[in-house]
Amino acid sequence: MISTSLQPLPGFRDLDPDKYALRAYLSRTWRSVAERYGFVEWEGPTLEPTELYLKKSGGELPTQLFRFSDQGGRDVSLRPELTASLGRIVAANYLSYNKPLKWFEIGSCFRYEKPQKGRLREFVQFNADILGEGGAEADAELLALAIDCMRALGLGASDFVVRVSDREAWLSFATRHGLTPEQTPDFLAVVDKLERDRPEVSEQKLAALGISRESVMDFIQNPPNDVSPRYETVLAELQARGLAEYVQLDLSVVRGLAYYTGLVFEIFDKAHSLRAVAGGGRYDDLVSTLTDGSLSMPATGFAMGDAVIAHLIEECPSARVLRDAALAPRSCDVYLALAAAEMRPQMLLLASTLRDAGVRVDLPLSTVKLSRQLRHAERLGATYTAIIGAEFPSIELKRMATRESEKLTLEELICALIPHRAAN
Amino acid sequence: MISTSLQPLPGFRDLDPDKYALRAYLSRTWRSVAERYGFVEWEGPTLEPTELYLKKSGGELPTQLFRFSDQGGRDVSLRPELTASLGRIVAANYLSYNKPLKWFEIGSCFRYEKPQKGRLREFVQFNADILGEGGAEADAELLALAIDCMRALGLGASDFVVRVSDREAWLSFATRHGLTPEQTPDFLAVVDKLERDRPEVSEQKLAALGISRESVMDFIQNPPNDVSPRYETVLAELQARGLAEYVQLDLSVVRGLAYYTGLVFEIFDKAHSLRAVAGGGRYDDLVSTLTDGSLSMPATGFAMGDAVIAHLIEECPSARVLRDAALAPRSCDVYLALAAAEMRPQMLLLASTLRDAGVRVDLPLSTVKLSRQLRHAERLGATYTAIIGAEFPSIELKRMATRESEKLTLEELICALIPHRAAN
Repeated sequence: MISTSLQPLPGFRDLDPDKYALRAYLSRTWRSVAERYGFVEWEGPTLEPTELYLKKSGGELPTQLFRFSDQGGRDVSLRPELTASLGRIVAANYLSYNKPLKWFEIGSCFRYEKPQKGRLREFVQFNADILGEGGAEADAELLALAIDCMRALGLGASDFVVRVSDREAWLSFATRHGLTPEQTPDFLAVVDKLERDRPEVSEQKLAALGISRESVMDFIQNPPNDVSPRYETVLAELQARGLAEYVQLDLSVVRGLAYYTGLVFEIFDKAHSLRAVAGGGRYDDLVSTLTDGSLSMPATGFAMGDAVIAHLIEECPSARVLRDAALAPRSCDVYLALAAAEMRPQMLLLASTLRDAGVRVDLPLSTVKLSRQLRHAERLGATYTAIIGAEFPSIELKRMATRESEKLTLEELICALIPHRAAN
Repeated sequence: MISTSLQPLPGFRDLDPDKYALRAYLSRTWRSVAERYGFVEWEGPTLEPTELYLKKSGGELPTQLFRFSDQGGRDVSLRPELTASLGRIVAANYLSYNKPLKWFEIGSCFRYEKPQKGRLREFVQFNADILGEGGAEADAELLALAIDCMRALGLGASDFVVRVSDREAWLSFATRHGLTPEQTPDFLAVVDKLERDRPEVSEQKLAALGISRESVMDFIQNPPNDVSPRYETVLAELQARGLAEYVQLDLSVVRGLAYYTGLVFEIFDKAHSLRAVAGGGRYDDLVSTLTDGSLSMPATGFAMGDAVIAHLIEECPSARVLRDAALAPRSCDVYLALAAAEMRPQMLLLASTLRDAGVRVDLPLSTVKLSRQLRHAERLGATYTAIIGAEFPSIELKRMATRESEKLTLEELICALIPHRAAN
């Protein structure tokens, strides 16, 4: 029976080492793929002036903020996403950076939403952005990165799909149908909800704008051939990379946030039984908005959270195998067991020597029977146990998996263990 | 001229990739040493019920909280430190863990203090704890870890010192001088401030407790031989490991927080010109406090922040050299330059092939003159540039440091680059 006061807040997570291992695996994979793509890591503050988010985002984000007054009376918020800080930092140091920038961040974000499957109040987001390139080739580079992150996690074309859309296609649709620029955001909001709203509801909302639901559905289902030249470029770039099978044009995707300006995309599990795994797109106006128009910089980016992807991995056998291999406990290369108390100084010196050489060593921190030490070594997942007894410097080295053991001199032991670690 | 609205909040940091590299270096080093010591990583929530900190800590911590009501009316705080969450998690899952636990965390903490050198409102803390072992051997293991973290950063015995003290020595001093248990915390608070308060102030405070400042100073300067059996054990354990030169007994250290119970320590730069680099000690009562006495678990731990250590590294040549080597930009193994636009698909396929093999590849994302591409490759710190032109699949590979270049076939190029990355 656990006292409620020992629980984390609703929507927040206690990651003990067993649970943390999954987060570490995701971060390691994201980082490694991003680095192969030439992206470099950055980190912004966890807390920002609330103004930053009100300036940037329309939509529901402002209502989901962990927002408060700090002790100095500042109106501050825990970051709900990472792009606003990115825009702020790039705008503040505009001249000192070589363009294009290819930056990524892995960090906690906070939204006050109802906790449910794949949705938490504190979650980790992997964010990758290219700033200073306006062409569709940059969108393609970003899409390729997103796809390769999925592939690196063991997910294939039968597991997920990248649905790509183009806001500009919708803007010309809106113009052709006589909408004013003021009406366009409302119109996009209706399109964004098409899949979730009941048909009658969408129909009514669209009628108020003078547009038939039929014409919208037809535009989505039978898009004109030349609807998005940008998408054509992206497709060609992905084809050349061997990654075209992962994407499809899907104009029903428009992304909620008001600040997207061009190509947008979302990654879904193939069965579409989960929320979006990742989403992003082009946001060419952010730097300009943050600097009241005095600077301008094209930009494109995406974010992938750690919650939905964890569910998708669980559902895909090939991804599950990779994950389980990465999560197997291997925190200890060798456990030094002490069979003769008077040899403790010798054991400690050996521990220092091995640790200095990069071997992961554990050892008893109080007087414990040898059998209990061996059991503890087993639970730690130690590869070896070295038994230091009265016959030191002769040492028994036991391979835990096979129970094989051999008598070694101190020098032989050190030689046996140091390359083991280096080979990992 | 940067608009104030583009600045982070006071005491918060914008870490662009150049600045982030230092944080990554510290985290990498802490993680690597902790793993060699058999510690495993965990992560708690950034936000906790405020009650958790009020329960745990006396001292000034409660006045420094970023504390607010969330949208559900909960009294919550950004974590000012990591140990309270650790105690909570361990208490909640008490039975499911094998003891002893050796856990570490690297995460952001928040304190509303006046920002100054080595003191920020958001900082990163490396926290390492051993739970479930009450003996001084566990304190020694932890001290050895702290020392080896310093050593791994290039800091030696001439750069820092670990000042170790024992609260129990002070408790018996207090008893011998007739203090009641209620008076003891006030007494320890005076001792804690001895170095910072003017002598008259300490004298007056101590007189109110019926103790002369002289007797306290004498106890610190000439501690009795048997003042701390625990320290004797720690010293013997560190001697056996070859690490005794880094520590000294210094009873003037008592640590501010009320919850410490036994050995405590602080790491200072040798010149003592900076704030403490790290601090910690034994806190055997935390789990009991959090469970209102229903569970109990001995514990010892320490924390090292990222701000003071960064200043110390800057002041020590050997540490500076290691840091600079780790921070040198090497985000790109090969830049693929495009000299003939029609070869873009071939370039993209080559990029995919190399990236799949783990090579860090960058490439042009728009049509740019070759000379500008080469300049960009140089700024990225690319090791190689491969020039893809009309004569593809013959490719010119240029080593950027030496300007040497050679003509290779596609296969030769791939063979030349893949082992390069693997060797890194």
